[in-house]
Amino acid sequence: MRKQPAERNTHISSFYVMELLRRAKLLEAQGVDVIHMEIGEPDFPTPPTLVDAALKHIQTGEVKYTPAAGLPELRIKIAGFYQQRYGVTIDEHRIFVTPGASGAFLLALGVSLNPNEELLMADPCYPCNSNVATLLGCKTKTIPVAADTDYQLTAKHIKDHWTGATQGVLIASPSNPTGTLISPEELKQAIDTVDKLGGCFYSDEIYHGLVYDNQATTALEFSDEVFVINSFSKYFGMTGWRIGWLIVPEAFIEATEKLAQNIYIATSTASQYAALAAFDENTLTELENRRAEFAARRDFLYDNLLRLGFEIPVKPAGAFYIYVNCKKFTDDSHQFALDFLEAEGVAITPGLDFGSHEAHHSLRFAYTTSIAKMTVAMQRLERFINRESL
Amino acid sequence: MRKQPAERNTHISSFYVMELLRRAKLLEAQGVDVIHMEIGEPDFPTPPTLVDAALKHIQTGEVKYTPAAGLPELRIKIAGFYQQRYGVTIDEHRIFVTPGASGAFLLALGVSLNPNEELLMADPCYPCNSNVATLLGCKTKTIPVAADTDYQLTAKHIKDHWTGATQGVLIASPSNPTGTLISPEELKQAIDTVDKLGGCFYSDEIYHGLVYDNQATTALEFSDEVFVINSFSKYFGMTGWRIGWLIVPEAFIEATEKLAQNIYIATSTASQYAALAAFDENTLTELENRRAEFAARRDFLYDNLLRLGFEIPVKPAGAFYIYVNCKKFTDDSHQFALDFLEAEGVAITPGLDFGSHEAHHSLRFAYTTSIAKMTVAMQRLERFINRESL
Repeated sequence: MRKQPAERNTHISSFYVMELLRRAKLLEAQGVDVIHMEIGEPDFPTPPTLVDAALKHIQTGEVKYTPAAGLPELRIKIAGFYQQRYGVTIDEHRIFVTPGASGAFLLALGVSLNPNEELLMADPCYPCNSNVATLLGCKTKTIPVAADTDYQLTAKHIKDHWTGATQGVLIASPSNPTGTLISPEELKQAIDTVDKLGGCFYSDEIYHGLVYDNQATTALEFSDEVFVINSFSKYFGMTGWRIGWLIVPEAFIEATEKLAQNIYIATSTASQYAALAAFDENTLTELENRRAEFAARRDFLYDNLLRLGFEIPVKPAGAFYIYVNCKKFTDDSHQFALDFLEAEGVAITPGLDFGSHEAHHSLRFAYTTSIAKMTVAMQRLERFINRESL
Repeated sequence: MRKQPAERNTHISSFYVMELLRRAKLLEAQGVDVIHMEIGEPDFPTPPTLVDAALKHIQTGEVKYTPAAGLPELRIKIAGFYQQRYGVTIDEHRIFVTPGASGAFLLALGVSLNPNEELLMADPCYPCNSNVATLLGCKTKTIPVAADTDYQLTAKHIKDHWTGATQGVLIASPSNPTGTLISPEELKQAIDTVDKLGGCFYSDEIYHGLVYDNQATTALEFSDEVFVINSFSKYFGMTGWRIGWLIVPEAFIEATEKLAQNIYIATSTASQYAALAAFDENTLTELENRRAEFAARRDFLYDNLLRLGFEIPVKPAGAFYIYVNCKKFTDDSHQFALDFLEAEGVAITPGLDFGSHEAHHSLRFAYTTSIAKMTVAMQRLERFINRESL
């Protein structure tokens, strides 16, 4: 029998944070009080309205396959949400309910990007997206981004890096790990540029809703020819339910439906019934309260990290991450994260998990934990850096 | 923007049955009493023990990501099931909980088969598997199989069709659409052959448990170097929960974990908590009762289809399908299925959905509906073929 994994797996990077997580669990098993600031998952439970909607359906026992594209009534509700929140009209047939944003991204690339075609994305960025491209035999080119463009790709980046092999551009706003947004003008220009170049534009909008200073803009405001990836995981608090959605251009509907049938049959039925309650007024009220709490945490963490001497050139406006430059303290942020965990029991994510550009000087702090816990974490961090700088 | 789907999508076949399903729904909306014998989904609800286990977890609201490989306690329970049911010992670290068997198959191929490498499979077979291979840039070669080998690939098939490009063999037992099993001897020889040829062996065991004459054999009885795909959908009645599992050889554990993290993060948490109750004695008792019911249905349908003049060269021993040769009535089974639906309101699946070998002479009947309904369906079928042959 074959004794080793297929070649593509050698190009799929591991997450450095996994090593940290394992160590954190070991420490916890030994009784250490570990504070988790590495986790990209809201600490809030799933809103009760969603839980109730799921329970009501599951109790019937009739948890059967749904259509591959999702429950028709859920697709209609998602379309209604775009109308209400963004004022854009989306034909619900362009909306596919997917097993998380991961499923949406696999579907989007699978339906639109050929092997060896290249996808442009920012560095730093969420690493799984590039690994999914690798799975499909597509190439990715990461473009170093910095504070001057809010860590977002611009039309100029796209034009400068576009080659004969390039066929797609991925923009994530709010961005993981930087929490920064692209401005509506920049987004429009980026879309127009890709449009003229004849490529595919993928807009990762999974942190929409979790925006604290100004509303995020959907790419659909500027074009019906873009792919939009979204999720019920983050704003709607449904991580473990594995449900997201993908919006495709009209011309891709048929192929997307076929591909969905083949690669995942359908999204979890209980999760879809839960999501039917996601846009109810009660749910949205609860989610807006949580958003206010996240905003307060963002401000708390931002102020404290600045106070301690970390550089944050752009105040993050969304998601639940702050990406700091730690070069004042170390040239090896990975080792810093390991040492900090060991010495103080606080887990954070090293920059290497998000690319290579300035990665050794970068750390991601997630404010997916309470201000009370972050207060302790900041005391520990202060002690740690004071000790290190002795 | 790009205006048309990526090239791979032109090689991904649509399901003919979808057209039938759409028409069936339209007829139902008009008040026609349609009997569904096209559906690969048990008509039983999810067993109450599983529903209760899910409810108990969901009620906490703490529906969070699990590890990518699945809940550790579920992996241990699956390992225990192999010990108890098959007498084989599997290290639970080789077991990955997946979003359905679809997720398992994508993971298995992704981790082991390179682009342009070729996978051998039977014709007829379940079509999604070949489409997933296409998604990854792998090739498939289907080998016509017939009654003489119970519609299963044999060691001889494998040797005869192996070329420099071949690197994998997929065997599904019980098979969809034929319901036939491979014998333990043939399975062992097939595995040994692939072993000697240095390829990968994939055993699709998703219909295990739904076997009526003799116990199905797992490929793991003969080798630790095979990939085994299984599912909670069929025997355990959990279709809409989207949960299955994959067992990989030791050398592939690390790459599989990495790939799982990247392509789906984790399987639905509620589904995993439900599955924790799948191996309880109460659940298994209920499932064995259902199996007895399926066995009675199989016998009923088999006898009736033979009586009406359809050829069934091998009595199917498992799954919930009977694959008949209908050449006595038509040379175009697809048209036959469309006409039968139109005239009599019974939906069945045309052979074309499972390959090309004798597909125009083949139809799949699913006994995922009660004997009462099948009694009516058989009356309608009798009337239909008598009218057609006038």
